[in-house]
Amino acid sequence: MLWLVAYDIPVTKRRNKIAKLLLGYGKRVQYSVFECDLDDEKFQQLKSRLVKLLQLPEDSLRCYPLIENSRPKIVVYGGDEPYKAPDYIVV
Amino acid sequence: MLWLVAYDIPVTKRRNKIAKLLLGYGKRVQYSVFECDLDDEKFQQLKSRLVKLLQLPEDSLRCYPLIENSRPKIVVYGGDEPYKAPDYIVV
Repeated sequence: MLWLVAYDIPVTKRRNKIAKLLLGYGKRVQYSVFECDLDDEKFQQLKSRLVKLLQLPEDSLRCYPLIENSRPKIVVYGGDEPYKAPDYIVV
Repeated sequence: MLWLVAYDIPVTKRRNKIAKLLLGYGKRVQYSVFECDLDDEKFQQLKSRLVKLLQLPEDSLRCYPLIENSRPKIVVYGGDEPYKAPDYIVV
């Protein structure tokens, strides 16, 4: 499923760590917004790693599920089309 | 339907105009992320007003549809629960 992850993290060091982690799970589409095309197991893994980095309630991080048939309804002004994980794995 | 609107707008004046417009259609949940609970007519109206303010490709604005049954799957760390427009109208 395509997950949209958006965050507000005031501390630069922590924000960079979160961004770095998310880069391993999906694509950065805006400064603090990532699109991650993940199966449930990968999403659960991502969540558990994110939680360890977050400082609540100071930080805010939201994950939105974009169910498959909603992908065509995504509206994009400026920037890339919605992310789709490659079906192949380069070995 | 709940729409998630996220933007990256480098020019402060324009960014403030977009935020002000969005405040009339939903709730700010992060610095540049809004949740808007809108019927289709209202969403089309919002889009046409947004497009007039945007400066492409410099600006980036994305609208994601969150289909009703995906609302319970939204993951929130820090910040408010997902926005639900009030069913009543104060007259």
